[in-house]
Amino acid sequence: MTELRHDPITGASVIIAENRAGRPQEFEPVQYAQKTADCPFCEGAEAETPAEIFARRAVDSRPDAAGWQVRVVPNKYPALLREIDGTGGGDAVVDSLFQGQPIAGVHEVIIETPEHLERTSEFTVAALSEVIRVCRDRLTALRATGQLQYATVFKNVGPKAGATIRHTHSQLMAVPFVPSQPRTIMKRMEQHWESSDECLFCAVTQRELQQNLRIVAQTKSLVAFCPFAPRVAYETWIVPQSHDCKFDEISDEQVEEAAVLLKRVMSRIDDTLNKPDYNYILNLAPFDSAELQNYHWHVVILPRLTTLAGFEWGSGCTINPVAPETAARQLRVGGLLSQ
Amino acid sequence: MTELRHDPITGASVIIAENRAGRPQEFEPVQYAQKTADCPFCEGAEAETPAEIFARRAVDSRPDAAGWQVRVVPNKYPALLREIDGTGGGDAVVDSLFQGQPIAGVHEVIIETPEHLERTSEFTVAALSEVIRVCRDRLTALRATGQLQYATVFKNVGPKAGATIRHTHSQLMAVPFVPSQPRTIMKRMEQHWESSDECLFCAVTQRELQQNLRIVAQTKSLVAFCPFAPRVAYETWIVPQSHDCKFDEISDEQVEEAAVLLKRVMSRIDDTLNKPDYNYILNLAPFDSAELQNYHWHVVILPRLTTLAGFEWGSGCTINPVAPETAARQLRVGGLLSQ
Repeated sequence: MTELRHDPITGASVIIAENRAGRPQEFEPVQYAQKTADCPFCEGAEAETPAEIFARRAVDSRPDAAGWQVRVVPNKYPALLREIDGTGGGDAVVDSLFQGQPIAGVHEVIIETPEHLERTSEFTVAALSEVIRVCRDRLTALRATGQLQYATVFKNVGPKAGATIRHTHSQLMAVPFVPSQPRTIMKRMEQHWESSDECLFCAVTQRELQQNLRIVAQTKSLVAFCPFAPRVAYETWIVPQSHDCKFDEISDEQVEEAAVLLKRVMSRIDDTLNKPDYNYILNLAPFDSAELQNYHWHVVILPRLTTLAGFEWGSGCTINPVAPETAARQLRVGGLLSQ
Repeated sequence: MTELRHDPITGASVIIAENRAGRPQEFEPVQYAQKTADCPFCEGAEAETPAEIFARRAVDSRPDAAGWQVRVVPNKYPALLREIDGTGGGDAVVDSLFQGQPIAGVHEVIIETPEHLERTSEFTVAALSEVIRVCRDRLTALRATGQLQYATVFKNVGPKAGATIRHTHSQLMAVPFVPSQPRTIMKRMEQHWESSDECLFCAVTQRELQQNLRIVAQTKSLVAFCPFAPRVAYETWIVPQSHDCKFDEISDEQVEEAAVLLKRVMSRIDDTLNKPDYNYILNLAPFDSAELQNYHWHVVILPRLTTLAGFEWGSGCTINPVAPETAARQLRVGGLLSQ
């Protein structure tokens, strides 16, 4: 069977085509050379990065020297500059058809550990909790600037996921506008409030828990499930079970729960899919607190087993060879993993 | 400078960040093994594919045997089945939140040459014209079934572009709905007609020709340019210069022009970017002829130098390290290539 599904949160469409799996692959599996010497993110190589913005480090250690647990630095090759500069010349022509403007923003790298780890599954829960707390605190600081409208934290692991450096790190980007994807979600949530007097994110999460067809794992206040219309095979979301909108106010207790669940899901993905490349993204409400009711923080995990091909780029509709019910069954291996 | 740009046709946003280019890459360049033995698409291997639907072949040759120039077969691992079958069981639950339905559609492979070519730049203009005519004729036949709403032809070259087979081929997918991307474009074109009494696609194309900042090449009736807000580096579109909506009515003369221009642009991309993986997509109007005025056929060429990473997946906004003005300057090398 091939099935067309629509994501209730984003409205995006996907064709679930399980008979697509098992295609022969004429291209040899990619072997990437190990390359750990000269890693710019390992302890001792602090001079290889721009000066640190923030760090969790031993009280007797100095900035940009050894002795840290988590270190935040500006991205050396930023997608956004902190200030609008005058470069760029006369190339960009802006008129009624061609609209664009210089923007400033924030692009930081969160170096998550001084050790040369490469995957989230290798972290201890304590170390991963520390990383999540640093994300939360950086987001709080950026919100307080009052100059930015939207921020997200994301992680790219492996070249298929867009990573260029192996040492595990996340990136934080904050921009002075609300991008299309969160805007779409906010609008759909607003429409659902108006038509049904309930939070769409809460409704979906409760329905997932009731149906129990796509649940991967859960803790007391969080749940991981494969969404009904996943864009990629084994896509998994981590979502609060209650109406939690603002990530930068989550408690230390919930931080630890998030670390437990993230480590568990990423370990399960590593085991089931043989350590695939992946992205995960912390999707957040815009900074404007008036909009908060129309968003929930959530984590989207995207194993990068395949790439978008011509049909997806042209149509906006993805093709997924693994139904989420199948994916969740494999990822939870024989029963719900609860804490 | 970093700049936020909005595509006039699709409305999609992109951050142009030229300082992003030149990042060090810790992962080794990928080397794929040559593997031409046992190619299922070469002449003589016709038994390796499903039985042909259509072929341009010598009058004295038999179906599914040697003697063809272009051969169309069903995809052996289709994303869409031709009939809605009863498989799939009770897994999919459809309710007010989770909406999906079984769909049938068409997924064909156009084997473009009996020779083992791998890139569009290797074709003669005559052979490429023949491929385009076959696409046109298959589209006409599928429109005539009356059961489908939208079709697209696309090509994936190399593993980064989602290809699994090296021998050059295109794919045709036809679906019983209009996907989000063409729907968005149609809506934006309709709004532009209402507000400005002109075709948005014509307006953009004329403005590109006037500005001459992003033109790559042109023929009498077609033009290739890097769009103002390209999703990926070196993205190039081929667009009719006049209000041509319906691809399956293009003349044999325009087919040959399209072949000339496509070969020229793909050769230029191969030379400039050292034979990158790429997709191209023939974006078409929906089959419903009432909608035609709100669409133009056009070809979108996407070199796959980088992959979408966390920010793009989460935000819906892409990051492009090469401004289209820079890309077009490089692709046209020292002046407009006109026929």
